[in-house]
Amino acid sequence: MAESQLNQLIVASNRGPLAFERGPSGTLVPGRGGGGLVASLGPALAGTGATWAAGAISRGDRQAAGGGPIEAEGFRVQLLDLPAPQYRQFYNVVSNATLWFLYHGLFDHARRPRFDKHWRGAWEGYRAINSRFAEAVATLAAPGATVLIHDFHLSLVPGELASRRPDLRTVHFHHTPFPALDGLRVLPDAVRSELMSSLAAASACGFHARRWAAAFEACCDDVLGVVPPVFVSPAAVGATELEKTAASERCETELAGLEEQLAGRQVIVRVDRIELSKNLLRGFLAYDELLEARPDLRGRVVFAALVYPTRQGLPEYQAYRQEVEGLARRLNQRWGGSDWTPVLLDLEDNYPRSVAALRRADVLLVNPVRDGLNLVAKEGPLVNERHGVLVLSREAGVWDELSQWAIGVNPFDVTGTAEAMGAALDMAPGERAERAEALRRAAARRSPEDWLADQLAAARPRP
Amino acid sequence: MAESQLNQLIVASNRGPLAFERGPSGTLVPGRGGGGLVASLGPALAGTGATWAAGAISRGDRQAAGGGPIEAEGFRVQLLDLPAPQYRQFYNVVSNATLWFLYHGLFDHARRPRFDKHWRGAWEGYRAINSRFAEAVATLAAPGATVLIHDFHLSLVPGELASRRPDLRTVHFHHTPFPALDGLRVLPDAVRSELMSSLAAASACGFHARRWAAAFEACCDDVLGVVPPVFVSPAAVGATELEKTAASERCETELAGLEEQLAGRQVIVRVDRIELSKNLLRGFLAYDELLEARPDLRGRVVFAALVYPTRQGLPEYQAYRQEVEGLARRLNQRWGGSDWTPVLLDLEDNYPRSVAALRRADVLLVNPVRDGLNLVAKEGPLVNERHGVLVLSREAGVWDELSQWAIGVNPFDVTGTAEAMGAALDMAPGERAERAEALRRAAARRSPEDWLADQLAAARPRP
Repeated sequence: MAESQLNQLIVASNRGPLAFERGPSGTLVPGRGGGGLVASLGPALAGTGATWAAGAISRGDRQAAGGGPIEAEGFRVQLLDLPAPQYRQFYNVVSNATLWFLYHGLFDHARRPRFDKHWRGAWEGYRAINSRFAEAVATLAAPGATVLIHDFHLSLVPGELASRRPDLRTVHFHHTPFPALDGLRVLPDAVRSELMSSLAAASACGFHARRWAAAFEACCDDVLGVVPPVFVSPAAVGATELEKTAASERCETELAGLEEQLAGRQVIVRVDRIELSKNLLRGFLAYDELLEARPDLRGRVVFAALVYPTRQGLPEYQAYRQEVEGLARRLNQRWGGSDWTPVLLDLEDNYPRSVAALRRADVLLVNPVRDGLNLVAKEGPLVNERHGVLVLSREAGVWDELSQWAIGVNPFDVTGTAEAMGAALDMAPGERAERAEALRRAAARRSPEDWLADQLAAARPRP
Repeated sequence: MAESQLNQLIVASNRGPLAFERGPSGTLVPGRGGGGLVASLGPALAGTGATWAAGAISRGDRQAAGGGPIEAEGFRVQLLDLPAPQYRQFYNVVSNATLWFLYHGLFDHARRPRFDKHWRGAWEGYRAINSRFAEAVATLAAPGATVLIHDFHLSLVPGELASRRPDLRTVHFHHTPFPALDGLRVLPDAVRSELMSSLAAASACGFHARRWAAAFEACCDDVLGVVPPVFVSPAAVGATELEKTAASERCETELAGLEEQLAGRQVIVRVDRIELSKNLLRGFLAYDELLEARPDLRGRVVFAALVYPTRQGLPEYQAYRQEVEGLARRLNQRWGGSDWTPVLLDLEDNYPRSVAALRRADVLLVNPVRDGLNLVAKEGPLVNERHGVLVLSREAGVWDELSQWAIGVNPFDVTGTAEAMGAALDMAPGERAERAEALRRAAARRSPEDWLADQLAAARPRP
């Protein structure tokens, strides 16, 4: 690799800012990669000249990976062509079915996890893919460069870089919650030590919320006896991009369509992936209790759930999706009639439509059982046009920033959530306006640039 | 109630030391009540003149309840006839399906718990039954008497007694683990406060292990801002009773029957209820990995699982039992042949047979995902006749007392458990004998009388 390709700032994450598809003429066409990380970090990196190393996910990505770094909007993308069997172990078994479940408290402990021979094989795959990332970063990075390593997929990268390239300043950032010691004890001892040692080898470890940072520090102290530098820096919404979408013709069309369905009714909105941590079932159950307790609301409110499938390769997610669809159907059978559909369940991943729903929401429900941050809770107040009320789980990382002006809920408390939604629908205009304005200010307080600046500030040389 | 019936020592627990059945002649015949509490506390109370207030569980119990206190072996039993619908809410919904799951970390959080209208009704039932216990104790107890309140079923009794009878010295003892704050946050706020306030109103709260006591203190501090006196006192095996059973003719017959089945092979034994916290599935999966990894053991070892159904009124337990039976069958299909059955699955609740298996065990597997104490881990070493090796989960409360001489396992680690069982089977005679002797001494170190004495010592007047 030529000297000119060496860089002062490297970003590494499983999913990158560009996703490639073969166009009709056979050329590779870049589109925008999905996920909250890309939405938050992409705009901030524009113009920095950074290099972003990411896994090649699609077939188009893998073809693009062969061609070396790709110029994007003021930064470069280096896609890594990773061996498929190891990538599946890394992504499906360890990242999604183990670490994600562990960090979000989703294990049904009587049955899962099972750290058996098969899992130990998958851990080797996780190691190998992390090693490939570390190798790519080591090759790309100029002496003394800063490396921002994003999320739990790449937990072993800081450790490997510390031995291969001790000159680098490495920051690891978790987008997930971090579990208390009781949770972390579940991992096999050697795995737990390897994971924590690697993270502790970073110059600093970042989290979206104080609570996750504190849990991480307690785990480091218990497992390693040392606590690395830790910082708290919640991600922010890229307001320019969001406003552009909100003002787009597609969004207007979607809003008109939604308005036609609502016919002037109040609407409770949720926008989520169909993910076990998002707590879709209890959201519907709470709505059911609300309609039961409040005959006056029947026919006068709609629950619009814009929720799209994710991780359908894992049976847990297929089962959960079926439960979600079944419950929405039962609510419509129980309460609906020819002139009113109480639940609008929309399974299409359609960003302009989601933004249209956020604009129109009278109530925005964000009730995860646990969530690293939750950007939807910030996007909603930024685009909402009706002084919508935020009903917010206290288990979301964004609670730190928004709780003061939201109606808080314990996500396991179905009755409490029903009452919160009822109170939100009933809220007087004056209080709605006041809270909505305060929420908007709180959500706009930080920018993606602030978030990036916090990470760069945390990147000090290792002692 | 006459003055002579007032007592200086009162015990309260859901399940009591006597269970009544109508005999063939129509008279009520008392038998021994089940459960670890009765086995530990019953012998120690003999001769104290205490009164034990317990729920009337069976139809025979309810008939016996009408007749006032019943004289037992040196103490009295007062059965409470409790209204069946409230008892079901108290026992099935709140105690077994909520608090038990919470304290053992068994919730599948994407789906359970659901604190809905139905659950809130059940909480009223839990309150009402606790109130009935408090009322009975208040009636029975002499001025300044000591009251020992046992287990999580009766969490609200200390609070109610504190206001009704501030003269009493109340000790609450948890037989379960106690969760970290992350776990306790799941409860509805008002319920959590009510529960913790009541427990903190006791003169002292007892636990089997340091870890649960520390978690309770942290929760008190967070929820209430105060920490009541807390003590750690692990329950002990009533050695006299156990030795009597071990020496009984029935036990000898069972041992002979088992020996015939084993035909001289080594045996791994487990004795448990079919309970989600007991980790039966991973125990079998580990055995499967052991047989896979160690061809030399095939045909030469048997896994005798003496596990009996419990709480079959809850669908979670029916499903778990089916999984356990299915997995045992699959292992026998995979590995067994005409001359060797690798898994002996015995679903009968037969105490002499369980003791016979503990006598014969070459390896005793105690691998719960979480357990307040686990008395089987102490019973095994006390009666074992082959220098059996204890493979012990570090998530059991008894870990504090026995870990030094056991082979420890992370209960989620199937491969680690397989390796531990292999190492236990392979252990050289000298080391086996040394460990078995040390385990026996550790298990015999404390008696039920010591345990009772700790509780009485903790019963100081409220400040």
